[in-house]
Amino acid sequence: MWKGRDVINILDFSRNDLEVLFEKADYMRKNQYRLKNELSDIIIGLAFFEPSTRTRMSFETAAKRLGAETVGFVSEEATSIAKGESFSDTIRMLDSYVDLIVVRHKYEGAALLASNIAEKPIINAGDGKSHHPTQAMLDLYTTKTLFNTIDGLTFAFIGDLKYSRTVSSLIFGLTAFNPKEIILISPSSLRLREEIRLVAEERGLRLREEENIEAISDADVIYVTRIQKERFPDLQEYERVRGSYRINKELLDKYAKDDAKVLHALPRIDELSRDIDDTKFQAYFTQARLGIPIRMALLSLVLKGE
Amino acid sequence: MWKGRDVINILDFSRNDLEVLFEKADYMRKNQYRLKNELSDIIIGLAFFEPSTRTRMSFETAAKRLGAETVGFVSEEATSIAKGESFSDTIRMLDSYVDLIVVRHKYEGAALLASNIAEKPIINAGDGKSHHPTQAMLDLYTTKTLFNTIDGLTFAFIGDLKYSRTVSSLIFGLTAFNPKEIILISPSSLRLREEIRLVAEERGLRLREEENIEAISDADVIYVTRIQKERFPDLQEYERVRGSYRINKELLDKYAKDDAKVLHALPRIDELSRDIDDTKFQAYFTQARLGIPIRMALLSLVLKGE
Amino acid sequence: MWKGRDVINILDFSRNDLEVLFEKADYMRKNQYRLKNELSDIIIGLAFFEPSTRTRMSFETAAKRLGAETVGFVSEEATSIAKGESFSDTIRMLDSYVDLIVVRHKYEGAALLASNIAEKPIINAGDGKSHHPTQAMLDLYTTKTLFNTIDGLTFAFIGDLKYSRTVSSLIFGLTAFNPKEIILISPSSLRLREEIRLVAEERGLRLREEENIEAISDADVIYVTRIQKERFPDLQEYERVRGSYRINKELLDKYAKDDAKVLHALPRIDELSRDIDDTKFQAYFTQARLGIPIRMALLSLVLKGE
Repeated sequence: MWKGRDVINILDFSRNDLEVLFEKADYMRKNQYRLKNELSDIIIGLAFFEPSTRTRMSFETAAKRLGAETVGFVSEEATSIAKGESFSDTIRMLDSYVDLIVVRHKYEGAALLASNIAEKPIINAGDGKSHHPTQAMLDLYTTKTLFNTIDGLTFAFIGDLKYSRTVSSLIFGLTAFNPKEIILISPSSLRLREEIRLVAEERGLRLREEENIEAISDADVIYVTRIQKERFPDLQEYERVRGSYRINKELLDKYAKDDAKVLHALPRIDELSRDIDDTKFQAYFTQARLGIPIRMALLSLVLKGE
Repeated sequence: MWKGRDVINILDFSRNDLEVLFEKADYMRKNQYRLKNELSDIIIGLAFFEPSTRTRMSFETAAKRLGAETVGFVSEEATSIAKGESFSDTIRMLDSYVDLIVVRHKYEGAALLASNIAEKPIINAGDGKSHHPTQAMLDLYTTKTLFNTIDGLTFAFIGDLKYSRTVSSLIFGLTAFNPKEIILISPSSLRLREEIRLVAEERGLRLREEENIEAISDADVIYVTRIQKERFPDLQEYERVRGSYRINKELLDKYAKDDAKVLHALPRIDELSRDIDDTKFQAYFTQARLGIPIRMALLSLVLKGE
Repeated sequence: MWKGRDVINILDFSRNDLEVLFEKADYMRKNQYRLKNELSDIIIGLAFFEPSTRTRMSFETAAKRLGAETVGFVSEEATSIAKGESFSDTIRMLDSYVDLIVVRHKYEGAALLASNIAEKPIINAGDGKSHHPTQAMLDLYTTKTLFNTIDGLTFAFIGDLKYSRTVSSLIFGLTAFNPKEIILISPSSLRLREEIRLVAEERGLRLREEENIEAISDADVIYVTRIQKERFPDLQEYERVRGSYRINKELLDKYAKDDAKVLHALPRIDELSRDIDDTKFQAYFTQARLGIPIRMALLSLVLKGE
């Protein structure tokens, strides 16, 4: 049952929920340009307390393809809001203006708090360091579209597995399916947090930790994340780590399975070499493109039901 | 006659004008989601030379509920505009693009100046320290909705009565009706300005000044405003004043009439305690919500007539 | 053939292309308020890496008059984009979201690069110091509308002819027509760049350089540009130059032809006196207004064809 639902944490969604979503996304993809009447009576609120051009534009495009309008605030303005007014008053105000609110915030739990305050549905567009459910839905949908299945696949996650909410959300999302194995490739200082690991294993995922990048050789999906400088107290350590977890064509040709696909939530800095862009491994631009139909499907399901 | 009219100063509007507006707002409230064709050929210009997320989003939502589009600039961008170009050139440009312009500016008289330059109608969304006519219309409409009348009611204004354009505009708006009494509760340094007082009394309002907050006991409408730190040269004086004009549940239970209602234009800092939020006194969230239908009514009347 | 075309450089457009555009713009002007279904299935991407409120609002208004939606980023946000992500990844992302991308950038060649990356049409809204094709189209269209011809007219350009992309683009645009003469009035330090001059003369334009402002006496179109302080190492030199290239009513009354018209892309500082605003010479507000129909025509031709 999708109608009226808050989308806070991907763990709240069953395999069946997600399959309904993927089917709807397929429909959106096929009919992307003929759906302007779908949500034409709807206004979507964008409450981006933390800036995010990419996710914001993706939601906005999805809304507008369905004929909905958007109203909200982003980045800089958010500062003045944060200053003048409490989070809950802002959400309460938006709740009385619009029909659904997309929330992005740097603190964990902000979206959940918003859902307790608002009567209208809340969609979490990323809060704190654990949850980014719509990115995970998109990543699962991309995998499904590329491989025609999620079950039985091996996923390798590379880079900063400790602070990336993209990684933890996708791992949570995978617990609704039966992947073969999850390979976690990171420097020891950026390992997946224990709390994420425990949830994943409890729900039946097989996780394997590796430090060496050659471990991608078993993976069908190679999921790359950025390593952020500010995580390292020691700059030399940063440079060393960064060098070791850089994916390029040579490395993929040498180690990756023939039909492996590379995902990345973008933006990338230099952890993902441009020389992969025109190879068979590249799937991150496909992934970006599928952000529109999956978010169209999500908005439609939450607002109008199945 | 509403069509084509500039909305600069609430004193320009008769009781009949305002009653037509309230009736239209009732209609908008009832049909909020079925009016996308009302202004579908219209583009509204938003010229926010001074930032205001709340008022801006309220106008934008109202416009979009009626099927109109918006184009404009807000806050940060306004700075670069202010730098590169004269106010009158900016208005003149917008005037040749859009069908109506909403102006917000920190200097008094900016909206009036805009109305002299532009052929299209101008709506003042707050300029300087005296005028914010659409907020006053909203506050009158909220009162009317809550009490089914404005005549015969007693209004208490609390806090910074000197610099708040919300207060002066609502007092001006009340001169079109017959309220019983206006109680002005403020520290002596933040009393209503003489020029506002004179206009109000000349137009027949009974004003009474008080310094003690217990004076709310006679009020039907308790209108609270923020006291801004920057108004006080002496920080200790600020802390004292701020403490004395803080409204909370205990105070209302002790002094307020049983069916009194608290209004506040929001955002609030701590002059209005959160413990009122779930009491019978709270009407500020209702007030925020009614911002949409009143602005829908205003846009519709100015653009399409009665 | 307009459909699907990138608009990068006005030199790529033939006289016939431009005449088709002007005819379409006439149609848009006449029907401006009845065209909401024209592009109602379209989303326009606005990629403003360099801020520009005026050009941005003009494109946005044009898009919305045709029923299209816009999605994008402007100024401040652009900074964070520039920081986090490569230009080409940003364009590639937008390309998979929207149906056409309007690019503005401070570096020359950015729009061309974007057109090589994107499958969707790119419109250059100004990049570097040479190209601003839509401004040139607008200026040609304004001239055509005012004089009913472009052929046979004399154009005087005044001010900073070295760094103004508005000037170089219009000169390039004029090579598709047969103007009588181009008079270039500037201080010697701000003369038209050799590379622009060569292209113009090769394509048959007659250029004449002057330092004295009285040379406007032969002109039908007097095109004024701003002289920017930052171009001068010596402040005294700046003050002298600025004083000599200031156009006002007195000067026009004394030297200009009776039916000469003054154009300026705006915003102006003080190179164009306000005392011209209400004279017969003023055509810059007309020019601003015509920005909407010309951009409506452009969007429609590129997206739907002739």
